[in-house]
Amino acid sequence: MLPLQLQPESHIPLYVQLRDQLRALVHSGELRTGDRIPASRELAGHLGVHRTTVATAYAELESEGLIQGHVGRGTFICNAGLKQFSPAPRTSGDGGMLRWESLFADERGEDGLSRLMPDVPAGAIAFTIARPPAELFPVEEFRRCCSAVMRDQCRNVLQLGSTDGYEPLKRSVIEMLRAEGLSVTDEQLLITDGGQQAIDLLGKAFLRPGDSVAIENPAYPGAIATLAGARIRILPVRVNAEKNSAGLDIDALEAVLTQNRVKFVLITPDFHNPTGTTLPMAERRRLLEVAARYQVPVVEDTIYGRLRLRGSAMPSLRAMDRSASVIQIDSFSKIAFPGLRVGWCIAPESVTERLRLVKQSTDLHTDQLAQATLAEFIRRGYLVRHVAKMRKVYLRRLETLEECLEKEMPQETTWTPTEGGMCLWITLPPGFDAAEFLIHARERGVFFVPGRYFYSQHPQPNTLRLGFASVDEKNITRGIHILAETLKQEIRKRHRGGNGASHARLALV
Amino acid sequence: MLPLQLQPESHIPLYVQLRDQLRALVHSGELRTGDRIPASRELAGHLGVHRTTVATAYAELESEGLIQGHVGRGTFICNAGLKQFSPAPRTSGDGGMLRWESLFADERGEDGLSRLMPDVPAGAIAFTIARPPAELFPVEEFRRCCSAVMRDQCRNVLQLGSTDGYEPLKRSVIEMLRAEGLSVTDEQLLITDGGQQAIDLLGKAFLRPGDSVAIENPAYPGAIATLAGARIRILPVRVNAEKNSAGLDIDALEAVLTQNRVKFVLITPDFHNPTGTTLPMAERRRLLEVAARYQVPVVEDTIYGRLRLRGSAMPSLRAMDRSASVIQIDSFSKIAFPGLRVGWCIAPESVTERLRLVKQSTDLHTDQLAQATLAEFIRRGYLVRHVAKMRKVYLRRLETLEECLEKEMPQETTWTPTEGGMCLWITLPPGFDAAEFLIHARERGVFFVPGRYFYSQHPQPNTLRLGFASVDEKNITRGIHILAETLKQEIRKRHRGGNGASHARLALV
Repeated sequence: MLPLQLQPESHIPLYVQLRDQLRALVHSGELRTGDRIPASRELAGHLGVHRTTVATAYAELESEGLIQGHVGRGTFICNAGLKQFSPAPRTSGDGGMLRWESLFADERGEDGLSRLMPDVPAGAIAFTIARPPAELFPVEEFRRCCSAVMRDQCRNVLQLGSTDGYEPLKRSVIEMLRAEGLSVTDEQLLITDGGQQAIDLLGKAFLRPGDSVAIENPAYPGAIATLAGARIRILPVRVNAEKNSAGLDIDALEAVLTQNRVKFVLITPDFHNPTGTTLPMAERRRLLEVAARYQVPVVEDTIYGRLRLRGSAMPSLRAMDRSASVIQIDSFSKIAFPGLRVGWCIAPESVTERLRLVKQSTDLHTDQLAQATLAEFIRRGYLVRHVAKMRKVYLRRLETLEECLEKEMPQETTWTPTEGGMCLWITLPPGFDAAEFLIHARERGVFFVPGRYFYSQHPQPNTLRLGFASVDEKNITRGIHILAETLKQEIRKRHRGGNGASHARLALV
Repeated sequence: MLPLQLQPESHIPLYVQLRDQLRALVHSGELRTGDRIPASRELAGHLGVHRTTVATAYAELESEGLIQGHVGRGTFICNAGLKQFSPAPRTSGDGGMLRWESLFADERGEDGLSRLMPDVPAGAIAFTIARPPAELFPVEEFRRCCSAVMRDQCRNVLQLGSTDGYEPLKRSVIEMLRAEGLSVTDEQLLITDGGQQAIDLLGKAFLRPGDSVAIENPAYPGAIATLAGARIRILPVRVNAEKNSAGLDIDALEAVLTQNRVKFVLITPDFHNPTGTTLPMAERRRLLEVAARYQVPVVEDTIYGRLRLRGSAMPSLRAMDRSASVIQIDSFSKIAFPGLRVGWCIAPESVTERLRLVKQSTDLHTDQLAQATLAEFIRRGYLVRHVAKMRKVYLRRLETLEECLEKEMPQETTWTPTEGGMCLWITLPPGFDAAEFLIHARERGVFFVPGRYFYSQHPQPNTLRLGFASVDEKNITRGIHILAETLKQEIRKRHRGGNGASHARLALV
């Protein structure tokens, strides 16, 4: 038999592991052109996995041209797939073509994680997305703002500007925050290219390779990618997703802080992506107390904070902070327009000044046409009105989603209660793997993101995220019906005992 | 006497060195409140520097509140300046306020370099700038493009987009390059937030801390800042700025490549900032040959390439490259609008794919409103027309500048011939320091950037950059007259023998 070793506890789906290992066997020469590989049913039985897992791995290898099936004869390694791995042609005398692959700073290769975010074909029901629906953008208001900017500020907007931000936008943001009860000075505020850049800048300002950062597990994958790219040690802290205890586990955080020198804690206290949890008041206080005690900065991502759909408002960590230990990052992408890359960062003055220097050598400043138009959009009151409208839309969608789940899903399936944001966190019955479940769901036109995508360590393979913000009620109803039916069918298959080995193995996870 | 040590060969101006050392003596306690410090004339004589140097340092310390002059009694250390350095107040019990300064990844402190880029008051003549003049922006054409985008693509532009770039802009750039004779595929092209971000992304893709990069000396300070921020070893390669031999010294480059493992060479072959030099054809061939032989990638910054004002066009390194060893970075900021942060990068497919992953974890993608409007601006032929117009404007300005210099400047002052771009590189008579000269010039309302600002090592203190693109002919004429008069006056002062010591010392540089 082939020397294959699958790890159910990895964040990489089993079919990706299998595909990659088979490919490696070809490249190392252990499998050669013309070699026959086992039938998918046979290999599945041997490995103790679902047959779909093997079939999906084989399908991908076939589309790469690495294997080929012949009806009645079996599946064979073939030649075509090897071409792309032949060494680059050398030209004579001058040292030859450059081999770029050997020059990259890191092994990145094919990223198992990015494969978990499925490509969604048009017409499918996409629970994959956690962003505002384009069809509800206040296009008319936006056009008016853009025209006003073009009329009054065109030359100013088009000339090189300040690294800390376009002055009218800084003023608008400060006024918006003041109206929300948060006092911020111009010197504390830095405009960024969205929340993603804020994380990048914080990394550059505070971290050296090998430094440690504590983040939620699961967490926003963009944060994991930025930190991993900067060669940072990611220390995952459990997120409680149960009814009575929600959000970052402060005891677990304290254990991490006791044992490690942590440069900062990154947390989304409101409507956390992906779990939807909100850190309760008492835990907020404890977090700040622990951070002050260990002298560790807290980076608070409030990107979903304005999307509270029910329940009572809670102050941000920055508003509660008495030790000047909180940096807040925020963005317009969830409350307005993700295609304009504009966000902001609030920090003590000395930190903002450092971030400004770092941003200057990163991209000079954020695009000013977008900044100016958003400033106008806030100034005219359009943003507040738009957010109020979208909260109603999102609440209806969330309630529809919950009703459908309640009505349709098999009993062993649970979800984390949420009071806002854009997504719901689902836990499938034990032993199920959401990445494998997705294979069946997408055949029926329904897409979601497997939970593995969000974990930096110890993934729970039976979790998945449903983004509800950009799916209308009709499609939510239809989509959940399809997911529930698919899941029930899979449960029935298992009860028929067809995959005992796979059960046994996956149940250990 | 005070323990002061000035280094004329440093890139930090003498007055900044003096100011910082005096400040340090106060903070370390060697100088205390009430201590008398020497009169500026006395200290200047002792240190062998121009009296203005000491006076400027004293003026800055006085504005900080660290010293105070009393007529007839002398200059004394005073109390006020010390307040800002007292330790942060601690709150009781909870670990106290966070001391952010101890948490930054690097010592950056006050950057001597950024102080060399002077703040220019309104109404002054600013040769400091190398960017397009806002009053000549084709505002009407831009408005039309923006309106068309708002009308036809608004929702698309406002929704989250592709990391590699907004499709219509990629198409427009590819067509523009094709019309210029360069063949580029969609897979080779990545849209960036301007040229500055391209350097940042290349750093993340290729470099680890401690890696080496060869760059021109002098060079674009933004490149130096980005590489220094990423803890890269910068290997400076001499730029020839003489009439008969211009641009990067390829022999010097080869010497660097022989002795170091260099990850890439960063070069601006056309109208280099700050020297204005253009690498001749024969040297372009040699550079590519050397790069291929040493298997070192060449990063070619063509940001000024379209601003050829006279002489005959030369192919880019990428167009001449036969070993696939060139990455080209470019931007709209010099040919159109710096306030829109949009540029691009052309590289082999595998490199572009890697840069795309890096950009994704940096800022997801470039602002789409700016991308869409620029796409329209190219598509309608406005960009080509605007560049043609601006080349005429810049040529007139360059010729005026050269005529004025020729007519007014003392004989020992020289400048590097240039065929395009936005600046001219001036060499003052031996022994002069441009940073000190600026102190006199700005008193008369004329500003420029001292050459030190552009060097990563071994600065020539008697060099300076005159940006001519955004100064009209009248102000060029007036500005050069003032600079020439100021310089002549300084030369006369020296001939009167008032600062022999300073002469002798600076002449050694």
